[in-house]
Amino acid sequence: MYKTTIENLDESEALTVLLIDNPHFDSGVHFGISDDTFLRGEVPMTKAEVRAITMSKLAPKPGDVCYDLGCGTGSLTAELALAAYEGQVFAIDKKEEAIALTKENCRNFYIGNVKTVCGCVPEALLDLTPADVVFVGGSSGQIEEIFNAVFLKNPQARIVVNAISLETLTAAIGAFTCHGIEPEVVQIGVSKARVAGGYHVMIGQNPVYVISGGGHE
Amino acid sequence: MYKTTIENLDESEALTVLLIDNPHFDSGVHFGISDDTFLRGEVPMTKAEVRAITMSKLAPKPGDVCYDLGCGTGSLTAELALAAYEGQVFAIDKKEEAIALTKENCRNFYIGNVKTVCGCVPEALLDLTPADVVFVGGSSGQIEEIFNAVFLKNPQARIVVNAISLETLTAAIGAFTCHGIEPEVVQIGVSKARVAGGYHVMIGQNPVYVISGGGHE
Amino acid sequence: MYKTTIENLDESEALTVLLIDNPHFDSGVHFGISDDTFLRGEVPMTKAEVRAITMSKLAPKPGDVCYDLGCGTGSLTAELALAAYEGQVFAIDKKEEAIALTKENCRNFYIGNVKTVCGCVPEALLDLTPADVVFVGGSSGQIEEIFNAVFLKNPQARIVVNAISLETLTAAIGAFTCHGIEPEVVQIGVSKARVAGGYHVMIGQNPVYVISGGGHE
Amino acid sequence: MYKTTIENLDESEALTVLLIDNPHFDSGVHFGISDDTFLRGEVPMTKAEVRAITMSKLAPKPGDVCYDLGCGTGSLTAELALAAYEGQVFAIDKKEEAIALTKENCRNFYIGNVKTVCGCVPEALLDLTPADVVFVGGSSGQIEEIFNAVFLKNPQARIVVNAISLETLTAAIGAFTCHGIEPEVVQIGVSKARVAGGYHVMIGQNPVYVISGGGHE
Repeated sequence: MYKTTIENLDESEALTVLLIDNPHFDSGVHFGISDDTFLRGEVPMTKAEVRAITMSKLAPKPGDVCYDLGCGTGSLTAELALAAYEGQVFAIDKKEEAIALTKENCRNFYIGNVKTVCGCVPEALLDLTPADVVFVGGSSGQIEEIFNAVFLKNPQARIVVNAISLETLTAAIGAFTCHGIEPEVVQIGVSKARVAGGYHVMIGQNPVYVISGGGHE
Repeated sequence: MYKTTIENLDESEALTVLLIDNPHFDSGVHFGISDDTFLRGEVPMTKAEVRAITMSKLAPKPGDVCYDLGCGTGSLTAELALAAYEGQVFAIDKKEEAIALTKENCRNFYIGNVKTVCGCVPEALLDLTPADVVFVGGSSGQIEEIFNAVFLKNPQARIVVNAISLETLTAAIGAFTCHGIEPEVVQIGVSKARVAGGYHVMIGQNPVYVISGGGHE
Repeated sequence: MYKTTIENLDESEALTVLLIDNPHFDSGVHFGISDDTFLRGEVPMTKAEVRAITMSKLAPKPGDVCYDLGCGTGSLTAELALAAYEGQVFAIDKKEEAIALTKENCRNFYIGNVKTVCGCVPEALLDLTPADVVFVGGSSGQIEEIFNAVFLKNPQARIVVNAISLETLTAAIGAFTCHGIEPEVVQIGVSKARVAGGYHVMIGQNPVYVISGGGHE
Repeated sequence: MYKTTIENLDESEALTVLLIDNPHFDSGVHFGISDDTFLRGEVPMTKAEVRAITMSKLAPKPGDVCYDLGCGTGSLTAELALAAYEGQVFAIDKKEEAIALTKENCRNFYIGNVKTVCGCVPEALLDLTPADVVFVGGSSGQIEEIFNAVFLKNPQARIVVNAISLETLTAAIGAFTCHGIEPEVVQIGVSKARVAGGYHVMIGQNPVYVISGGGHE
């Protein structure tokens, strides 16, 4: 067997079989990517703990088509793409900066199954493959329209909304109810110790509501 | 009856009885002084909600002698002084700035029963009248020494500790246990809506542990 | 001076002046009445910590007229009555059992300024003196009607709603907004240690939303 | 090709190759197994949300050796086994009932890489393969001993402790510190809506501390 690297390949050699070995290969799925692994810029990011709970509510399968609406830094995009490693993730955001960050964060994880879309919801969803799993991190006040667009393409889609405002919380519950689904509503309050002078001072994060429903149940 | 103001009092007049009327008079006790009523400077302040719970655990009576250890802005000093309106509050802090703020905040509420002490605990407690009610907002790592000093003067004192660190929490439970008291331990997590663009976004505060025990039970 | 008790008063004696001395007298205001001081029955009771925060948001003054709507056990009725000791508290509930408990709990605190009303809101409010301070512990889905009735009598009333459901939370914010008031919205999460085998296990209580606004601000 | 089922296999037939097809096969990893998928009995179970965060802190890799100490119902055992699908999970509990439940729950997920051990920690760890990832759900007050046993076998092990008591929290921080590791300390407070009469009432769960550290960082 002849072993070399791409750089040293000599075109004149009689190559019959090319075996490409990815030294960075890892099984598709990761639990617990830490927050500081992601580039962030000025874009808001779902924190690790809320991301973990959100992933558990999304419950993506390897072959699923996923949407990440309001992808921000792309931290959830990356987790979805690694979990749905035989599927496809569409990461959508209206801000160019978010799309750029999402691309860069996915590149850092050697992720190849993400397609980014810079645009507004629900319009940006029109041409996409129907989703199995939809994460709504940012809705721009279009929760109802998003739900209509998603369920029109696939009435069995599973949707998870992260809400930090009471209005989005109410809208998400209302949108599920409109489609005949009683969602699960969970509030997550996380505080994390900051160590200073040998003291562990608990620092509170803002509470997040996770509203989820739909899918094959 | 002759009615005038201090400024217009003429010494030559034949005054036999002086009735002093305080136009600012208010019944001694206040519930719910809002945070922005207090001058704050750079000094940390116990927030209104935690202050309310702390006052309910302290349960001061009108004639009580109270200590406010680590008085900071003096927000709890003021509430204690208004509740113990026939008693006395000693407000102690090692920082000059805190003492100055406490004095100013008390003055703004026309409070006359507060004595400030700039110094370290437990030394600063040595010469004080025994306390009925003690609030420990700041302990400088001297929880055990504070408890010893307080209970030496009055074994029936009631002590309430606010802890933001796990170490102070543990120390406070330990100090109560040392004195044969099983304290009540409560954790308070408050989040408050910030309104922006018609949305109520819940903002988390840092959790506070309130450890309380002692007193006539 | 002749000193006796009511029981020993002999009608034949020449009584000219009767001085009644209340040995149970206490200054009107109490901070921190503990939960187990109240008789409870099967009726739900606002817990001590939430009661303390609620009182601080109500901020009753000695002469205030107060409503306690959905008074339940009367725990807040009692605290209001002690704080508004020169005022009047109307305790309203649709359940006979709640009214009976409220009466009994008030009697145990020697409270004389409470009037109970068994009936539904907002109808039960029609004949009452206008309120300065209104606590809505139970609304039976009539938040909007309650606000209208209260503000019609006194546009400067201060209202505090305790909500455990998202629907009541939304309705309360909406009702304040309707009357041109941006309410303060606070969520309180309390956990309390249960001691077992030397371990302090933190037990979570259900979160409560406290929505408050109005009054002379 | 000859296709049949195990039941219909006729021994007399000339079988040369046997292809076994598992119709229940699924990629090894699952996010978000819901609580009611597990048999529970009287044994305490880590709830879905805390399980999700715990898994994200454990961050198991496909080939990892994992310990689940105090496995209870085996809910975390199952999640670990599915994530470490090329590795091995040792599920340890001192109660027979817990071991039986863990076995049954693993069987329901067609899990083949779990070995249960009924016994006390740290003794039960003596003969086990060194762990890459250790979850301490129950410690029986032996946190320090567990840490010593785990780190003796593999100084690069990653340990995650779930604590519901302040004493276990303190012990876990202390044990990490003893081994020169500054752990991450997170408190999780979850409340979940219960729907009744069209109202979503938020029900609080007990807070859980998640203390994690170690591993290749």
